[in-house]
Amino acid sequence: MSKLLDNVVGELSRLPGIGRRTALRLAMHILRMDEEDVVSMGESLIDFRTKICRCAKCNNLSDTEICDVCADASRDRSTVCVVEQVSDLLSIEKTHQYRGAYSVLGGVISPMQGIAPSDLRIDLLLDRIAMGEVKEVIIAISASVEGETTMFYLMNCLKRFPHLKITTIARGIGFGDELEYVDELTITQALMNRREISKQ
Amino acid sequence: MSKLLDNVVGELSRLPGIGRRTALRLAMHILRMDEEDVVSMGESLIDFRTKICRCAKCNNLSDTEICDVCADASRDRSTVCVVEQVSDLLSIEKTHQYRGAYSVLGGVISPMQGIAPSDLRIDLLLDRIAMGEVKEVIIAISASVEGETTMFYLMNCLKRFPHLKITTIARGIGFGDELEYVDELTITQALMNRREISKQ
Repeated sequence: MSKLLDNVVGELSRLPGIGRRTALRLAMHILRMDEEDVVSMGESLIDFRTKICRCAKCNNLSDTEICDVCADASRDRSTVCVVEQVSDLLSIEKTHQYRGAYSVLGGVISPMQGIAPSDLRIDLLLDRIAMGEVKEVIIAISASVEGETTMFYLMNCLKRFPHLKITTIARGIGFGDELEYVDELTITQALMNRREISKQ
Repeated sequence: MSKLLDNVVGELSRLPGIGRRTALRLAMHILRMDEEDVVSMGESLIDFRTKICRCAKCNNLSDTEICDVCADASRDRSTVCVVEQVSDLLSIEKTHQYRGAYSVLGGVISPMQGIAPSDLRIDLLLDRIAMGEVKEVIIAISASVEGETTMFYLMNCLKRFPHLKITTIARGIGFGDELEYVDELTITQALMNRREISKQ
């Protein structure tokens, strides 16, 4: 087998969810692509990994020292939404409903995976709050065991700012979810946090 | 959103079966990979597309003018297996059972997709046969409408070599296939081509 082909199949199959068979299919597709398109694809991978940095204020991925969100003067800097990952930030941004700032932890506390609080960028959040501008912190961390641990740890850190409002995103049944397939914990929370419907 | 991230997500989502969501997941994985591994992945894509060539004898993918299979003196050059694509050749090679040569057409005749016989490398097969070494041609083309058309066209081309043995790979029920889910045409062929079991 061609070394060039073998290399590309080997490299692509290192990606999650891509086995050797899929990698071969992708390689055959790449072969049919224009040469310049493949060059720009390869370069985009390298550029992304070697040039991207983390925003000094919120730990978001950024091409510059301060990310687009933090640099945007029209955003409300009195509200900070705490998320685990950049992908969570992107999901929230996609709604176009949130106009505050973010603080990306970069993970959750996980003794199993050896992630300690000091591995997370909680320092950036605390620095930001210490500067006095922040009025509300929205905690948008997933409701896993590690997520709950992280939330508990955060609450402890935030205790020393008594005037700070701390909220978490609502837990409940998602749009389109069928009750039949939703787990007990979510249903319990959804029942506990029920809202009254106004009778008009 | 970061331009570098946006670029890599855009480029990856051009690949078949990879949407923007998967591309984002891959990008996040790439971010966690070692920088040198990402560089070698990007370069392997570019090298593959820009440096790979087609074997001058069989149209297989090759790093050199003549591919490994054609260059291997231990292989039986009197038998040539005709396949559509390089991936078919690789599937046959994986069995380690075939020791002959190949001829990769590079597709099948398809008026719908504008692929004419002249777009296929039938010329390489005919050249090889004309040189006198070939005794058997095994046609291993898929049994689609286009495949059958291509096979018919090939048979016509091969008419002028009366001493050539022409065979096709057996059609039948695959190992592990359940009869219940196999199409009628395959079952019909499997019945017609039934083999007698020796009573010992």
